[in-house]
Amino acid sequence: MQFLSDNAAVVHPAIWQAMRDADQASAPYDGDALSQRLDAAFSETFGRECHVLWVATGTAANCLALSTMVPPHGAVICHREAHIEMDEGGAPGFYLHGAKLILAEGDAAKLNPDSVLAATANIRDDVHQVQPAALSVTQASEYGALYQPQEIAALGALARSKGWRFHMDGARFANAVAGLDCSPADAAGPVDALSFGCIKNGAMSAEAIVFFDSDLADIARYRRKRAGHLQSKGRYLAAQLLAMLQDDLWLANARAANQAAAQIAARAEDRLLFPVEANEVFCRLTQAEKAALRDQGFGFYDWGDDAARFVTAWNTHPHDAAGLARAIAAL
Amino acid sequence: MQFLSDNAAVVHPAIWQAMRDADQASAPYDGDALSQRLDAAFSETFGRECHVLWVATGTAANCLALSTMVPPHGAVICHREAHIEMDEGGAPGFYLHGAKLILAEGDAAKLNPDSVLAATANIRDDVHQVQPAALSVTQASEYGALYQPQEIAALGALARSKGWRFHMDGARFANAVAGLDCSPADAAGPVDALSFGCIKNGAMSAEAIVFFDSDLADIARYRRKRAGHLQSKGRYLAAQLLAMLQDDLWLANARAANQAAAQIAARAEDRLLFPVEANEVFCRLTQAEKAALRDQGFGFYDWGDDAARFVTAWNTHPHDAAGLARAIAAL
Amino acid sequence: MQFLSDNAAVVHPAIWQAMRDADQASAPYDGDALSQRLDAAFSETFGRECHVLWVATGTAANCLALSTMVPPHGAVICHREAHIEMDEGGAPGFYLHGAKLILAEGDAAKLNPDSVLAATANIRDDVHQVQPAALSVTQASEYGALYQPQEIAALGALARSKGWRFHMDGARFANAVAGLDCSPADAAGPVDALSFGCIKNGAMSAEAIVFFDSDLADIARYRRKRAGHLQSKGRYLAAQLLAMLQDDLWLANARAANQAAAQIAARAEDRLLFPVEANEVFCRLTQAEKAALRDQGFGFYDWGDDAARFVTAWNTHPHDAAGLARAIAAL
Amino acid sequence: MQFLSDNAAVVHPAIWQAMRDADQASAPYDGDALSQRLDAAFSETFGRECHVLWVATGTAANCLALSTMVPPHGAVICHREAHIEMDEGGAPGFYLHGAKLILAEGDAAKLNPDSVLAATANIRDDVHQVQPAALSVTQASEYGALYQPQEIAALGALARSKGWRFHMDGARFANAVAGLDCSPADAAGPVDALSFGCIKNGAMSAEAIVFFDSDLADIARYRRKRAGHLQSKGRYLAAQLLAMLQDDLWLANARAANQAAAQIAARAEDRLLFPVEANEVFCRLTQAEKAALRDQGFGFYDWGDDAARFVTAWNTHPHDAAGLARAIAAL
Repeated sequence: MQFLSDNAAVVHPAIWQAMRDADQASAPYDGDALSQRLDAAFSETFGRECHVLWVATGTAANCLALSTMVPPHGAVICHREAHIEMDEGGAPGFYLHGAKLILAEGDAAKLNPDSVLAATANIRDDVHQVQPAALSVTQASEYGALYQPQEIAALGALARSKGWRFHMDGARFANAVAGLDCSPADAAGPVDALSFGCIKNGAMSAEAIVFFDSDLADIARYRRKRAGHLQSKGRYLAAQLLAMLQDDLWLANARAANQAAAQIAARAEDRLLFPVEANEVFCRLTQAEKAALRDQGFGFYDWGDDAARFVTAWNTHPHDAAGLARAIAAL
Repeated sequence: MQFLSDNAAVVHPAIWQAMRDADQASAPYDGDALSQRLDAAFSETFGRECHVLWVATGTAANCLALSTMVPPHGAVICHREAHIEMDEGGAPGFYLHGAKLILAEGDAAKLNPDSVLAATANIRDDVHQVQPAALSVTQASEYGALYQPQEIAALGALARSKGWRFHMDGARFANAVAGLDCSPADAAGPVDALSFGCIKNGAMSAEAIVFFDSDLADIARYRRKRAGHLQSKGRYLAAQLLAMLQDDLWLANARAANQAAAQIAARAEDRLLFPVEANEVFCRLTQAEKAALRDQGFGFYDWGDDAARFVTAWNTHPHDAAGLARAIAAL
Repeated sequence: MQFLSDNAAVVHPAIWQAMRDADQASAPYDGDALSQRLDAAFSETFGRECHVLWVATGTAANCLALSTMVPPHGAVICHREAHIEMDEGGAPGFYLHGAKLILAEGDAAKLNPDSVLAATANIRDDVHQVQPAALSVTQASEYGALYQPQEIAALGALARSKGWRFHMDGARFANAVAGLDCSPADAAGPVDALSFGCIKNGAMSAEAIVFFDSDLADIARYRRKRAGHLQSKGRYLAAQLLAMLQDDLWLANARAANQAAAQIAARAEDRLLFPVEANEVFCRLTQAEKAALRDQGFGFYDWGDDAARFVTAWNTHPHDAAGLARAIAAL
Repeated sequence: MQFLSDNAAVVHPAIWQAMRDADQASAPYDGDALSQRLDAAFSETFGRECHVLWVATGTAANCLALSTMVPPHGAVICHREAHIEMDEGGAPGFYLHGAKLILAEGDAAKLNPDSVLAATANIRDDVHQVQPAALSVTQASEYGALYQPQEIAALGALARSKGWRFHMDGARFANAVAGLDCSPADAAGPVDALSFGCIKNGAMSAEAIVFFDSDLADIARYRRKRAGHLQSKGRYLAAQLLAMLQDDLWLANARAANQAAAQIAARAEDRLLFPVEANEVFCRLTQAEKAALRDQGFGFYDWGDDAARFVTAWNTHPHDAAGLARAIAAL
């Protein structure tokens, strides 16, 4: 029973079916009918005008989006533990041509206006210091915490007041919307672009960059090609994205993952490092306890010496989640 | 009947099957068993030690490979009509951090030692001019022409004598090997890295970068992640590549495409702009003639005002090729 | 008697004096009184609002200016023999983050609307090809030829109609204005930024980037620092620029250089490769003739096997120019 | 009486004289006799083989040096308050093509092996995280503290054991050597390259990059040109550097500045934030105290609300230093 990561789960049957349905000769790149339907499909989901590009990874989605917002001599404000800072192999430095990440604090990897202001308070407004140009948040956060709509709104208001662009890394945006039980629009708030994750949620190889500003999307189209991310058989990526939105498969998958995480959390309350609001459970566990769990066949990542991370996925069976929950409770 | 491009063809059934077979929980990124088998599989195909990375596009393959060979202050020598110069949206400038392309001449988009020397003859060996660091050729060329093994060997010898690295864009390498009827090793010659194309040959979304120098491969692994090309479900890409090599599917597919092109060429000999050695046919055709063909349902690209490009694919039916051949002959 | 290059000449006494006068404690970087006077001084010279930054080299001036105009995924159109293409060691690739140079033709290294259109005619308006974002000309050209005001105006009109920015490399702008005998504003025409050269004209280490668009200047200030070109004792650079403008020293120096070139040209008319309109003389000379001149003590660069380049400077003595002219005539 | 910064002081008479002596026609760029003498002059000073390039700023010196050591996908470890992190406008991001700075702790802006290991301890050796490639220290540190030779040696040993290159920002290296009263070689220890500062020490516009590895110097020559830092009249920069070394002017100037700082520190011991080992004095001072000092005509920078920074220079008169010392003591 694996709780290593949702990024290794199998592909949902509806995604397979959509890809097979796309298997016919078509215009290359994003000229096919499926790619052309993305804007409308996402616009309907978000209730506002969207301009959507598919890409193959979350790293590409985040960095392409940011590259349209930040000049090479500018900076992005993000959390000290943001994925773009910690886990993208320096991709922001590549895509943003050396622009800087300004690291801010916040519980559970969530920013707030005070922490953002603190991180930027000592930046003199002169050419000797790199000036922020965008703010980036992760919804759900790297520790599985959620921004409430009013929290996103407040950060957006701060960004607007400072003249910064606003980006959301939504690798687990589906889990966030499912957890918040709000509209996608409210979960995204006033961001200029959203990396709308699907791969951790049952897709194979497609993420959406959802732009709410057409000027940024126009830039991104050139940059996607320039980064080698414009696949010639793009219809197989578009098919995945459309299938995700179809009948809200994305939300059904996310709810299943969240519920499995909640099952585990319910039996581990005194061990939790962070509130469990999406599909990740961080538990205090000794080395001996972790060994005991592994002996029982559970797979997961160490989180330092005295904690562990469990991630549930769209296909985590309630039976397996219950098994893990019991095993933790029994330690 | 479409002859627009092989890059839009459907996916071969064996590729689909391999992807379905890969649909089980596995280590993410390239830690899965399929990705781990790539080095051995390609080493067997080439009869020498290979270090192989999957990526999703030919542009990424070319530019990642070159980025391991050329410093930002250096240059790549390529043909004036090379794909990296003409059709990659400036990706070499991005991946190579502003390194330069030095453009050389040659019939049918093929370089030769004389044309390479002519292109570099006037570069003074001082800091005011950008110094070449690598040579890149395309096999088959952008005009469907093939480098004979001795031609590649001669270019490789020149590169070695100058201290340049040597790269091959093999978006249609399969068609080249099929057309040359030689070993893959002879078709690649002494290159340091080969972009081994599969997408135009029946795959969905996987190309291989085949390094014959492990030091370059080690750099490429970091750069692939940094470019957002390290997919978390990499097993679906590895599966495509392994299926291609299995029982030489890649050569069977390429032979089919080449034969279809030969069928067309045989009826259009007096119209050919270039010898037809792989799966592309460039024909002199007036605007009226092109209109007539389109009226009969044939799809293809204009090549300027008075020519057209026809590309065959792994699934071009001999009947359709014959139909086009007859239609051209009847003009 | 050296005619190698104006870039190696000694420093004019008035420049020395201005630098000595600047030798007092002052605000660092460009906060000193002299740097603060640059905008006004150049605005008066050009009769329009200027925003001026000093830098230490022409390469930095050109590339910083262009970096404010062209996105990394864009291109600059310039002459095939432009300094930015031929002699800046790839600096445009560095400063523009991999943007491309599109090379156009034209006599005497001068562009014209037809040649610019020819160079861009085959660029499809899609993401696979790099789109031009700026046009760059050199006044006086790399072969010492001048753009008449109406020629600059025509190129500017073309740029405007295409949505391109317009840049002028004026490493020898002073020689151009002196040769055209027109106003500086007319010689610059509708460019957005001008690299106003002083070092080849008697300064030591200061060039001006003259922006006619304050938004571009604002970007350039950050980029200058980021490129390590913001000197802490900037007052010594500002002093040089102000001394150049004072009493039109720049034009007096340029006229002296131009007259010396004219002296030489007058005796070499049948040997000239290009009309001599500024301070460079390109002459057809055999290897034996060049050897003979060198035996008489004249220094100059070969221009291929059968030509030579002679450059005069602000301090070329008429007697020396006459000596060279006689020597050539006597060959 | 200004104590704002040594970077705004006037130019030493011997520097002026050397520049005037250089005012004769000569080979351009670094082909002149003075530039050609730099390697020998610095080799004598350091007692080992040096390869030396002049540049116009400390930012360019630091970033060019580092650009020869760190690939774009790598990182530099430096102090959280290092100049390259805090005050160079993002130049490392530009020159290193997006490589990362890894920030480490340490008193008085000095690193030590423990703090360096702590900063890198959590970097997994995989492609998802950016791997360090070089270590950079500042001698004297940004807070005027000195690395003892054995401290540099220990950091060098750590770097060597990890396979990292080692760089020293010596914007105030002269003050460090004067303060340590050791040989230049011991103050630099086993670094691969040293930014040898002169501008804060009485020069006008020249810093030296001293490479102790000729391979790095060879790369730097191309990168200097590419960055627009190869001045055509380089002899005026070389002259400044040679004059600095002549009769140890650099050490005499630095000693004068250090002594003035010591004078101030001696009367402010209970207010010092850091030990005063070079030419910078950081004092706790209330807003009212700072206002009082400014009323008496002393110029200096605020260091937050409750402290101030005083910097002495080569030409700080002992009388002025004594005056400030008395004024602080009298508060």
